[in-house]
Amino acid sequence: MSNHPDSVVRAHVEAHRSDFLDDLGEWLRIPSVSADPDRAGDVRRSAEWLAAALTATGFPVAEVWESDGLPAVFAEWPSGEPGAPTVLIYGHHDVQPAAVEDGWDTDPFEPAVRDGRMYARGAADDKGQVFFHTLGVRAHLAATGRTAPAVNLKLLIEGEEESGSPNFSALLRAHADRLACDAVIVSDTGMWAEDTPTVCTGMRGLTDCQIDLYGPGRDIHSGSFGGAVPNPATEAARLAAALHDDDRRVTVPGFYDGVVELTDRERELFAELPFDEAAWLRTAHSTAALGESGFTTLERVWARPTAEVNGIHGGYGGPGGKTIVPASAQLKLSFRLVAGQDAEKVQQAVRDWVAARLPAGIRHEIRFHGATRPCLTPLDHPALQSVVRAMGRAFGQEIRFTREGGSGPAADLQDVLGVPVLFLGISVPSDGWHSANEKVELDLLLKGAETAAHLWDDLARNWHPGAE
Amino acid sequence: MSNHPDSVVRAHVEAHRSDFLDDLGEWLRIPSVSADPDRAGDVRRSAEWLAAALTATGFPVAEVWESDGLPAVFAEWPSGEPGAPTVLIYGHHDVQPAAVEDGWDTDPFEPAVRDGRMYARGAADDKGQVFFHTLGVRAHLAATGRTAPAVNLKLLIEGEEESGSPNFSALLRAHADRLACDAVIVSDTGMWAEDTPTVCTGMRGLTDCQIDLYGPGRDIHSGSFGGAVPNPATEAARLAAALHDDDRRVTVPGFYDGVVELTDRERELFAELPFDEAAWLRTAHSTAALGESGFTTLERVWARPTAEVNGIHGGYGGPGGKTIVPASAQLKLSFRLVAGQDAEKVQQAVRDWVAARLPAGIRHEIRFHGATRPCLTPLDHPALQSVVRAMGRAFGQEIRFTREGGSGPAADLQDVLGVPVLFLGISVPSDGWHSANEKVELDLLLKGAETAAHLWDDLARNWHPGAE
Repeated sequence: MSNHPDSVVRAHVEAHRSDFLDDLGEWLRIPSVSADPDRAGDVRRSAEWLAAALTATGFPVAEVWESDGLPAVFAEWPSGEPGAPTVLIYGHHDVQPAAVEDGWDTDPFEPAVRDGRMYARGAADDKGQVFFHTLGVRAHLAATGRTAPAVNLKLLIEGEEESGSPNFSALLRAHADRLACDAVIVSDTGMWAEDTPTVCTGMRGLTDCQIDLYGPGRDIHSGSFGGAVPNPATEAARLAAALHDDDRRVTVPGFYDGVVELTDRERELFAELPFDEAAWLRTAHSTAALGESGFTTLERVWARPTAEVNGIHGGYGGPGGKTIVPASAQLKLSFRLVAGQDAEKVQQAVRDWVAARLPAGIRHEIRFHGATRPCLTPLDHPALQSVVRAMGRAFGQEIRFTREGGSGPAADLQDVLGVPVLFLGISVPSDGWHSANEKVELDLLLKGAETAAHLWDDLARNWHPGAE
Repeated sequence: MSNHPDSVVRAHVEAHRSDFLDDLGEWLRIPSVSADPDRAGDVRRSAEWLAAALTATGFPVAEVWESDGLPAVFAEWPSGEPGAPTVLIYGHHDVQPAAVEDGWDTDPFEPAVRDGRMYARGAADDKGQVFFHTLGVRAHLAATGRTAPAVNLKLLIEGEEESGSPNFSALLRAHADRLACDAVIVSDTGMWAEDTPTVCTGMRGLTDCQIDLYGPGRDIHSGSFGGAVPNPATEAARLAAALHDDDRRVTVPGFYDGVVELTDRERELFAELPFDEAAWLRTAHSTAALGESGFTTLERVWARPTAEVNGIHGGYGGPGGKTIVPASAQLKLSFRLVAGQDAEKVQQAVRDWVAARLPAGIRHEIRFHGATRPCLTPLDHPALQSVVRAMGRAFGQEIRFTREGGSGPAADLQDVLGVPVLFLGISVPSDGWHSANEKVELDLLLKGAETAAHLWDDLARNWHPGAE
């Protein structure tokens, strides 16, 4: 056996593969469904199981943290090296609901290994991707001969992610001192494909609102009054329609202010991905692409801010016709935000735009439901480069870049802790998150462990947070 | 007492006022609510009561006509004069539901006379306005010394008008030969106000449709797909918004083809009406007027074709937000038509317009729910001039002109019988049609009888339908 660190890491991972999968299987048997109040005890049992497993891995600190909802797990393993960077790994130990009746081939809470895959609820989302870090840190110690990791390692594994993380922000604020770090590594995402390892460099932000429009005091007769008084359903439609111009650009003045535009290099890298638009359209259950002129589909969902009509309702919706001018209408809009946009400024811009467009005789109310900020790591960020190198060593392939069109708790981590957020995920689109027969590819899971093993060493050598 | 016909008519009406009101009261006690299946026997009893009353008035033919729904009443009184015009009076003997609990001061089916008004369900809509013809034709005979009316009189009084006249068109077609006439006089409308007697010269037509738009095969995640595939709620909104330009003119190409424009004289006459926009807005439960540029509110509702969004529904409508691109959306549109427009051509224009505006990836279905044609009698039509003269004699005032923005079975009469439709109504806006405390002004009711008495003689003298 070679003494090259990559060989040592691989040998360690291979040697412990069987025990690692047995342990993961044990955790997956705990049905930690956060959405089901009857499973609250299982979510707690899952947290306790994980804390014990982290202790067994060597973490000197491993605690179950209470929240106003379901418990999270915190663990910490100081490096002992002065000046070492501190990294916080984020993941979650709760899972989506699952039942054999939903179309599973085997019991979702009885892990089954077939054809190099482990099938179970949570195998990829997110227990597998949390648990590879236990194997990764042991491989890192084996390869470096250290007794503690080269970086100060922290883990925060929440228990309510599948229920929308209602208490996560409060938990972060309550423990901000113990969570202090130089970067967060989110271990709850995926790669482009089995044969195309990638690193996600950002997620879009989100803010959404409800606009209620009020016209006549009650539904009125369209024969007697139609065409002579304002119609709130028409005005809701005019707002929704005016959101985009014919190039499908958002028309709200100031909406694009500050947007960090894609660099030519990023566009080239996106374009190099083996994107099959027909296959993508199938996953979108759609038959045609449509979006902002001048951008590709991937650019539109990953890197462009968008406005979407999530719902529009006004007037009669039953069978046949009813010749009324309706009394009210409602519009639900969401805005995906990218780096450089300020959610509060976007909200104000939308408020102003709505108020300026409505005619006399239409009263309106607009309520925003909060905001999730976008996050984006520049391609030349040294910690991101470490992730790319670590993945490259594990996968033996060029690592490409993706982004995530959705929005998530990563933004809370970035905001509350005030540090960059990186993404390390080995799941692939076929893993079936939230669906029947969720699985994880065992080879990729072990490559995740290898990546983590390389990453701590690379970060300690190459990243000096204070010096940026 | 003067022998001038006007004096004889007035004297006859005054002399029989008490009996007439007693008889009307008896009819109003029959709760002929067509919408209530439990009242079907009362609707039949109402028809039988009316047929007997018409026989007692002198009509040699008075029959209850069966339909696939509730019965109508037909009566006929030939003039005996060769070449006399034939006039068909239209009205209805069914009424809207009513109950004391709805806010009536007295039992809606126990007529109460207070302050010169008779309060009862159907007093104005439409039993009172049907029944004044019995008094009118007797006064006509008294004033002319005739034993039969000067015109061939027919009555068709339907029993399902308040339920949307579902079997009326079929009834007309089944009996078209017996209903043959030179003009229809609709006795189911109103006047501008107590002190402003008017004749309605037309009603708008109507056609309405439902447009279903289909996008993704299911609701999809707006983070993963939003901004890159077409959104059917957005497209429904874009259609609804594009219906009108910023001048609130309908943009569908060809929509205005053939529209009979208002003449300068008609616009002058409308403008002379004592229109109080603030009061009108209160009846519209609205706080501002809005409509096609270049037209007044009255012109907009009476004489301009319009497009209205009766309903728009797509995507999420529950509490909070849901970040989806919805799978489908639905739009319900109605179009009010004026003379000169062809409903089928408008329908085809809308179909073409919708199909041309939707992007790839949005499938649509459009269904029209039928069409009611507009009707309009030119101000110089000799039969209309007879109505105006007859009203003028009864009211002793200048008679002004209105139109009706709504649409109704008048159009069926015009279409099936192929003759002009005139309107003779003495109800006023305060009569409370379809509301609690419906009433009719007794003075106006008797003036209606006087108008009818004058009208038959005037028509026989001045109108020669074949000679137009």
